[in-house]
Amino acid sequence: MKRIAFLLIAIAVACLVAFTAPASGHADGEAAPIFGIKIPSGYRDWKLISVAHEAGNNNDIRAVLGNDAAIKAYREQKLPFPDGTIIARLAWRYVPSEENNKVFGRAQSFVAGPPVNIQLMAKDSSKWAATGGWGFAQFDKDGKPNLPEASLKTCFPCHEPSKAGDFVFTHYAP
Amino acid sequence: MKRIAFLLIAIAVACLVAFTAPASGHADGEAAPIFGIKIPSGYRDWKLISVAHEAGNNNDIRAVLGNDAAIKAYREQKLPFPDGTIIARLAWRYVPSEENNKVFGRAQSFVAGPPVNIQLMAKDSSKWAATGGWGFAQFDKDGKPNLPEASLKTCFPCHEPSKAGDFVFTHYAP
Repeated sequence: MKRIAFLLIAIAVACLVAFTAPASGHADGEAAPIFGIKIPSGYRDWKLISVAHEAGNNNDIRAVLGNDAAIKAYREQKLPFPDGTIIARLAWRYVPSEENNKVFGRAQSFVAGPPVNIQLMAKDSSKWAATGGWGFAQFDKDGKPNLPEASLKTCFPCHEPSKAGDFVFTHYAP
Repeated sequence: MKRIAFLLIAIAVACLVAFTAPASGHADGEAAPIFGIKIPSGYRDWKLISVAHEAGNNNDIRAVLGNDAAIKAYREQKLPFPDGTIIARLAWRYVPSEENNKVFGRAQSFVAGPPVNIQLMAKDSSKWAATGGWGFAQFDKDGKPNLPEASLKTCFPCHEPSKAGDFVFTHYAP
């Protein structure tokens, strides 16, 4: 049991840990290994699915955005997500805001600091049948893939317990 | 000094406290008092400015969205914001995710729970000259104004220390 717990933690950390390599310049068109996913242009303009804070090693605050196919499926509560769905998780360092706290008169405000990374889930049920129809990728803030093949392989096992939600953790925030 | 601190806290709390009245049905077209601001249709589709967590009495996790004028000004780093800018702050209860924590094997994940309220700042430099060009409003999740006049009057004094940022607290998250 302990071994399973440890394995799950290891997988989760490998899959989700902040892994930002210093990058110079933009790397449009470079594909993440294994799944061959490129960062979609305009993803920063996508609609909001929800927000979250991961404490612990991650120590980030995050927004989950979706392309039109993702948003439509979420709002219509239709599962599984259709092919063409892309879900983007943007994470930033979780930092206290001294500026806000000064106004509030107490330490209560935590905001988005420097960007950590961008993770994508893209749906293609035939191409990625072995991983629930999902392909996974991670990019640094400049759009450069920054997870080695071995780490991307750990993404799906981590998402597998969320089978009832088509392997997606995030729920839509109304 | 203590009195000033207390006053600032009182203003901040009045301005930002979760104040969700139970509402039945949607109240499209009903304007918030004083500033007369209605909730803009389609605001939930606006682009993301940033995310934050307010601890303490607020205990929420929030996303700040902007209409096109807001996003353009943020991205071009142009201050003051132009007339027509609207910034929407959506807050949800800050709740631990048992579902995620089970996967991670530890309590680290906090997500958006039930909606708390929606606050708006709208820019019209002539109409609202007395409050830095900004009008303020708060709505419940159904789009019904839910802050009394006296409380809306406390919004600007709370934003006044952020004069250098045109009275807006939130910075753009890249």
